[in-house]
Amino acid sequence: MNSEKRVSIGTGASAEYEATVTSPVNIAVIKYWGKRNTDLILPTNSSLSCTLSQDDLHTKTTVRCSPKYKQDRLWLNGFEEPVVPTHGRGYRCLQELRQLRKVIEDENPTEPKLSEYKVHIVSENNFPTAAGLASSASGYAALVQALANMYNLTCDQTELSKIARLGSGSATRSVFGGFVEWKAGEDPLGSDSCAVCVAPETHWPSLRALVLVVSDAKKGTPSTSGMSATVSTSTLFEQRIKYVVPERLKDIKEAILNKDFKTFAEITMRDSNQFHAVCLDTYPPITYMNNISIGIIRLIHMFNSQVDPETNAPLGVRAAYTFDAGPNAVIYTEESNIKELVSIITHFFPPSQATSLKSYLPSAPSLFDIPALDQNSTIPLNESLLAPYKKTFVPFELGSIRRIIYTKIGDGPRFLNHSQSLLNEAGMPKRVKD
Amino acid sequence: MNSEKRVSIGTGASAEYEATVTSPVNIAVIKYWGKRNTDLILPTNSSLSCTLSQDDLHTKTTVRCSPKYKQDRLWLNGFEEPVVPTHGRGYRCLQELRQLRKVIEDENPTEPKLSEYKVHIVSENNFPTAAGLASSASGYAALVQALANMYNLTCDQTELSKIARLGSGSATRSVFGGFVEWKAGEDPLGSDSCAVCVAPETHWPSLRALVLVVSDAKKGTPSTSGMSATVSTSTLFEQRIKYVVPERLKDIKEAILNKDFKTFAEITMRDSNQFHAVCLDTYPPITYMNNISIGIIRLIHMFNSQVDPETNAPLGVRAAYTFDAGPNAVIYTEESNIKELVSIITHFFPPSQATSLKSYLPSAPSLFDIPALDQNSTIPLNESLLAPYKKTFVPFELGSIRRIIYTKIGDGPRFLNHSQSLLNEAGMPKRVKD
Repeated sequence: MNSEKRVSIGTGASAEYEATVTSPVNIAVIKYWGKRNTDLILPTNSSLSCTLSQDDLHTKTTVRCSPKYKQDRLWLNGFEEPVVPTHGRGYRCLQELRQLRKVIEDENPTEPKLSEYKVHIVSENNFPTAAGLASSASGYAALVQALANMYNLTCDQTELSKIARLGSGSATRSVFGGFVEWKAGEDPLGSDSCAVCVAPETHWPSLRALVLVVSDAKKGTPSTSGMSATVSTSTLFEQRIKYVVPERLKDIKEAILNKDFKTFAEITMRDSNQFHAVCLDTYPPITYMNNISIGIIRLIHMFNSQVDPETNAPLGVRAAYTFDAGPNAVIYTEESNIKELVSIITHFFPPSQATSLKSYLPSAPSLFDIPALDQNSTIPLNESLLAPYKKTFVPFELGSIRRIIYTKIGDGPRFLNHSQSLLNEAGMPKRVKD
Repeated sequence: MNSEKRVSIGTGASAEYEATVTSPVNIAVIKYWGKRNTDLILPTNSSLSCTLSQDDLHTKTTVRCSPKYKQDRLWLNGFEEPVVPTHGRGYRCLQELRQLRKVIEDENPTEPKLSEYKVHIVSENNFPTAAGLASSASGYAALVQALANMYNLTCDQTELSKIARLGSGSATRSVFGGFVEWKAGEDPLGSDSCAVCVAPETHWPSLRALVLVVSDAKKGTPSTSGMSATVSTSTLFEQRIKYVVPERLKDIKEAILNKDFKTFAEITMRDSNQFHAVCLDTYPPITYMNNISIGIIRLIHMFNSQVDPETNAPLGVRAAYTFDAGPNAVIYTEESNIKELVSIITHFFPPSQATSLKSYLPSAPSLFDIPALDQNSTIPLNESLLAPYKKTFVPFELGSIRRIIYTKIGDGPRFLNHSQSLLNEAGMPKRVKD
């Protein structure tokens, strides 16, 4: 899959260097919430996430440095953004990587002085902002990976994760595929606050994720200020970070290594709930989940309490929800349950009539093979499957869930070749919006 | 206000004894959530509440014992309910009080043997179920008070609170007016788990309460099973009961004694939020607040962050919300703020067109003197007052709040005379529904 790390364009003193990568989104199952150092983005506790497949969700970034460029420039999703030297987190990552490049140049005087060149950066998400997914994790991971490749650095992914961390905490975990722990570390300077791969994406091939994008009018509290408020005002928070998280982390790693879905799922749900509990215990309280989110929680617990209609034996915990700093749910389940689960979710959270099925559930009908699926009907379903839910669960308003993205666990950053570059020959973005 | 404790009807061996009382509702500011003994209703932590005025909300109960009655009978809000001997909590209170009566009779052989008579009980709430208020606190407090009066017991209110506790935990606090602490106690048998009056209702005469009855389709988790789930599954709960509540209790009692509204309000809000946080940390999670509840929280925090339009000085914390096991809010504020607060609440949570103003805000317009108030218009308001809210707060759907009850801090159980009895001469309820 991985192509060359970088390409050089031209030769001699005028040569330009370029790298293009994609980086994945990750969704935490043990949540990161709280910083012990806000400047260095050092967390109060370790966290653990699953990397989602870049086939479905990724940030793609091209970086190029050239002796001709007059200044560092950045285009984000088609719009140029200022690169603010002293405050910008992206600029900080760039400077860290330039320093590492400088070390190589100092040690090898024949190396081109790329650390002195200005850089052009183009970055694009393949998911719309309307998908409701935070893009800072994949975004900063892609930036850091692309720059490291362009500078031909030799540092490993764990070293790279520390630089991604300076961009955004959750980006620390997007430099690996599979199951990734961000170790909180103890060093006040952050030298040991970095990501490690707990298991690669090939370890548990049957695991699947559904991103349920929920409608919401309210704008949530930004996570940086939210975390800081929780750390300073919640009287339950210390208990969480000192005692609860360390035990959960140990247990969920074991569950992942054993592919023990039940334990993995229960810890995931409990930790999502506890993260939102400490938000509610913040003063003034922070709330991210809405009525629809709570409805999804109820439905998943009902799904997990179903019994086999023939033997009456419990089917057990077959799905887990997790919610980040917003109303959207990510549901983890195993491939064998996906059709039943999607059928139930789409029945009780039907698409709005204005939503075409293609935007509501892009992977249907090909993936789920539901022939009668069309935008004006709710999705047909075996009535006996629905009956136990219908007793107590009333379908939500049309359009409560705007979109369902079906994906799986995926690999870490991918290196693309020059044909995939986002920059044209002149060093300007191939696509610009205005 | 208080009349005779009881009346006797008839003379000699056929004499019947009767008592009629009303008892108040109370709303906790330090929440009771969690039992250390479910049978004896012994709580995991002390709690503290304000007793609300019986002029607005109460349960009225008449009890009569007669040698003619064949069995214990109970009519609740116009319907006869079975008196289940071994399971019923009401029956348990009755038996406890019969025992205490028996002691008197054993010590004074001339006393009539009321402990051997059957009892007829009639109980009515003056607030409709639709008001969304739990009636078990006022209900069991009224039952226990009426029986104690009928039996001419000499025990004090704190002793009585232990018997009310056997009916419903929150009833423990409804035997006093004003500000009431339910001490958790340490005795495994509950001898020290009882209510004490922290300050009488006359102590802080400017304090007011608004009960905001919120529309909700979802049926919440019953509090008994909810508490038990929290105690056994929340990993934050122990921190709350061991460390957080004891300190808050000390601080809020001091705030009450000093009539320090700011501290009283902040602790009240923090403790409501923490109660809901430990519910969310329960597995599966318990949620009682809905989008409307969260909207009320946001509006109150906005109210508390307003500044004086002329001096720009902060007006400070002027209102506190608290939520029990449901979506309804109770707002505490001081009398001087009530008009501004009600105006803002009614503007952003307007009545449904189907609700007549009389049922939406029974105390308007007489109380608030808002002339243009009618059922088809939202309540007119000084635009400059609304402006700071309008920037970020969008009015909720009509009818999101169904009713607003305006009340204040009130006294403990009141003793009524025979003319107020709910039983007719034959010992049957004066009003029965069918």
